[in-house]
Amino acid sequence: MFITFEGIDGSGKSTQARLLADSLRGLGLDPVLTREPGGSPGAEEIRALVLQGDPDRWSAETEILLFTAARRDHLERLIEPALAQGRIVISDRFADSTRMYQGLSRGDLRDLVDELHRLMIRREPDLTFLIDIDPEIGLSRAKGRRGHEERFEDFGLPLQQKMRAGFLALAAEFAPRFRVIDGARDPAEVAQDILALTREALG
Amino acid sequence: MFITFEGIDGSGKSTQARLLADSLRGLGLDPVLTREPGGSPGAEEIRALVLQGDPDRWSAETEILLFTAARRDHLERLIEPALAQGRIVISDRFADSTRMYQGLSRGDLRDLVDELHRLMIRREPDLTFLIDIDPEIGLSRAKGRRGHEERFEDFGLPLQQKMRAGFLALAAEFAPRFRVIDGARDPAEVAQDILALTREALG
Repeated sequence: MFITFEGIDGSGKSTQARLLADSLRGLGLDPVLTREPGGSPGAEEIRALVLQGDPDRWSAETEILLFTAARRDHLERLIEPALAQGRIVISDRFADSTRMYQGLSRGDLRDLVDELHRLMIRREPDLTFLIDIDPEIGLSRAKGRRGHEERFEDFGLPLQQKMRAGFLALAAEFAPRFRVIDGARDPAEVAQDILALTREALG
Repeated sequence: MFITFEGIDGSGKSTQARLLADSLRGLGLDPVLTREPGGSPGAEEIRALVLQGDPDRWSAETEILLFTAARRDHLERLIEPALAQGRIVISDRFADSTRMYQGLSRGDLRDLVDELHRLMIRREPDLTFLIDIDPEIGLSRAKGRRGHEERFEDFGLPLQQKMRAGFLALAAEFAPRFRVIDGARDPAEVAQDILALTREALG
């Protein structure tokens, strides 16, 4: 089973991905916890190119190609082999983030994102948790921890609001695999919901 | 006018690209001499990822995405702006090299290369010089200068022969823009032919 976490910056999805991996380990399972962009040695090198430097370092189109290259490597080297071994893979972000950030925020490029996905990736998650949160809360959390990977974390409130609405629309578009989670609550409570939904999906 | 040089390793195309740029400067023109992979700051960073390291560092598919990302950046940041200013652009390798090396040598991926080209690049050169040479001569020249960018220069004679045949087939496929040049002669003589054909194409 391939599980992904999506949401705007500061939604708490990385924390929740980690907590779910911990809980599954507590149940005697052996999940793989990974992230995008990155997740494999090659993809992490592409991550550095994409997340560091000037905001206009890459055009939106070049960025989509670099994200797709990183995802292809991550898929080939880590995700597919782990799934083939019967392991659960949990990824902090996956293709839905590209649909949102490159497909929506940097221009109207969703068709291009979709064509590249169809050509090079194809794989969709079995289960996606969208951690939904008020963009003002998300932004203040994200700003508190910003480091050197800041190409995408200075987009301001209007963009975060647009992204939140976009993610909710995406959850409707791919309804069968999406679970929308209220991320404004206590992280332990959020984690409990996510674990229950995961166990339900695992059957 | 956009002019490209193609050919197997050691064919002399880099030398000829430089000699043509020098000759055009001597005629009072202001050509841009560039190369692929690379040619713009971002594309040169991608070049380092692609040309260094283990041969199996990237799958053929990921490699095609990285080459396409580099080409898109090169096109947006250097080639298109220079052409828009009316300058002649001379590139040592361009999309034909991807059609050959990623589309043919690492598997039967020409369709994928073509789809990505149609989606992300579209631009074709106005004039392409294929410097044709006996693969044994090419290989011995290429081996004499090998440095740290060696992911692609250790493929041996059978592959070089396949690539030579592939380039000749490509020249037939895109006949109107291709000029096949015998690269076994003295470089000055080869350069003279290339300059004459370029002047003819410039009108």
